[in-house]
Amino acid sequence: MSQPSNNSTAAAPILGASRCRFDTLVVVGVGLLGGSVALAARQREIVRRVIGVGRNVPRLEQAREARVLDDVSTDLVAAAAQADLLIFATPVNLIVAGVREVATVCRPGTLITDVGSTKAHLCRELSAGLPNFATFIGSHPLAGSEKQGWEHSRADLFEGRVCVVTPTESSRRDEVARLTAFWQAIGMSVVEMLPDAHDRVLAQTSHVPHVVASALARTLADENRPLAATGFADTTRIAAGDPNVWVPILLDNRDAVLASLDEFSAQVAALREALIRGDANEIRRLWEQGKAIREQLKVSRVAE
Amino acid sequence: MSQPSNNSTAAAPILGASRCRFDTLVVVGVGLLGGSVALAARQREIVRRVIGVGRNVPRLEQAREARVLDDVSTDLVAAAAQADLLIFATPVNLIVAGVREVATVCRPGTLITDVGSTKAHLCRELSAGLPNFATFIGSHPLAGSEKQGWEHSRADLFEGRVCVVTPTESSRRDEVARLTAFWQAIGMSVVEMLPDAHDRVLAQTSHVPHVVASALARTLADENRPLAATGFADTTRIAAGDPNVWVPILLDNRDAVLASLDEFSAQVAALREALIRGDANEIRRLWEQGKAIREQLKVSRVAE
Repeated sequence: MSQPSNNSTAAAPILGASRCRFDTLVVVGVGLLGGSVALAARQREIVRRVIGVGRNVPRLEQAREARVLDDVSTDLVAAAAQADLLIFATPVNLIVAGVREVATVCRPGTLITDVGSTKAHLCRELSAGLPNFATFIGSHPLAGSEKQGWEHSRADLFEGRVCVVTPTESSRRDEVARLTAFWQAIGMSVVEMLPDAHDRVLAQTSHVPHVVASALARTLADENRPLAATGFADTTRIAAGDPNVWVPILLDNRDAVLASLDEFSAQVAALREALIRGDANEIRRLWEQGKAIREQLKVSRVAE
Repeated sequence: MSQPSNNSTAAAPILGASRCRFDTLVVVGVGLLGGSVALAARQREIVRRVIGVGRNVPRLEQAREARVLDDVSTDLVAAAAQADLLIFATPVNLIVAGVREVATVCRPGTLITDVGSTKAHLCRELSAGLPNFATFIGSHPLAGSEKQGWEHSRADLFEGRVCVVTPTESSRRDEVARLTAFWQAIGMSVVEMLPDAHDRVLAQTSHVPHVVASALARTLADENRPLAATGFADTTRIAAGDPNVWVPILLDNRDAVLASLDEFSAQVAALREALIRGDANEIRRLWEQGKAIREQLKVSRVAE
């Protein structure tokens, strides 16, 4: 894996942020991420207008009134026909069908991407069978929140964060560069990875932590809730994520999640066995190892 | 377990916060918690002066210069002889010996407590064998941070938080009421529990989450660190806790920690098995259960 960098597509000329410009951005799925992409792109004047596509008209209208969107539509195909950049911000299980649906109506030159947390399955599915002029390249901006709905959107959600872009062998380098420039223009560092490698890494850094947080939350007996303090709250924060988002991610990345979950369980077992033996030295060794790894993380928190 | 309340010692008259007053507070162990107790008690004028006891003279002097303490000492016995309220804020494995050492030199009427995260072992050890005039009652203020050292002390660390007080059959109710009034005076809600019950609950709400966070941190491969975002960071925050604090807690509460850890592992296994089967309905059911429990938690965060 390459390190995050503002220059990770060295094989192709990079468009500077100031030169990154699309006329019409269509965001499919106007939740926290879709809304934040819309806000960030408009605020930085990377796009002239944003059309939000969804199913719930009153919710879409509210987002437009709140100036998160310029226009709204429930007609994916009609909106896609106007797009220069089209970003799917739906649950991952809806992306393949959505991209296939729009690929035949998009104008040549329209760039199609997504913000999903799994990449292997959908990049494999979408690397073939699209019209010649249609371009899909996967993206995964590592930003978000356990909160749901465009009301929690923030124009600065992506600032200083990493975005993984996952081109395949059939991706054109100039299109990869255009996509990279877009994420850079809203403040992100772009890392390029193969879709399979992305999914293996994210199983460890994100998907298994979600499984663990959810399992831990489920152990809390009602009557013990008053004694759950900030430690419990932080360790389980991401258990409050949207099941419409998380169930498809786990199913889509099943093998890598199971492999990483086994690594986690082995670490739990190591401490458990040391505790059964009363082996203070081994417990301390394990603890200090975890502490050192945690302290090397430098992650700026999104204020909650 | 009783709910948090400002009136949980209804069997005895409560001293109002304004009437809670000690002349000399001695804090043994001047770290984040000891320093914060000192700051909170002085700022609210609950005590006239605070003596901090420790081993590292330069560190103690710095804390005095920073006005966290009025006086410092490396002589536990000499300081204890001046105490009206004596609070042990050391790792839990040092509390029993420390209390035994001071109990013979304290004046009658001196109240001795602690801030440790385990209560059963030490309350059992200290319920007998102390001089008749010496009073020890266990406390566990549910406040803290993974950060270490008095530099991170905050006068408001305890505000709005719960403090568990764990009297035994031999505890005098008027002494329990004095101790309760102290924690209330620095802003806490007091819950009274039996020491054994406290340790069983805390295994679930705090000790196992620490074990889980530590195990999760240890799974992170170096090369994947750039893709660990806020979800990973929050889920592992408490893995950075001080091993001098956490190794003794886990050893001291071994049986309850192992029992709660088995409950956690069963929850992980339930999701793992559903994932192997590809059982989306069961994964969703488990996820929604965890989400509902997490969303019922209303924990105000200490800003980091």
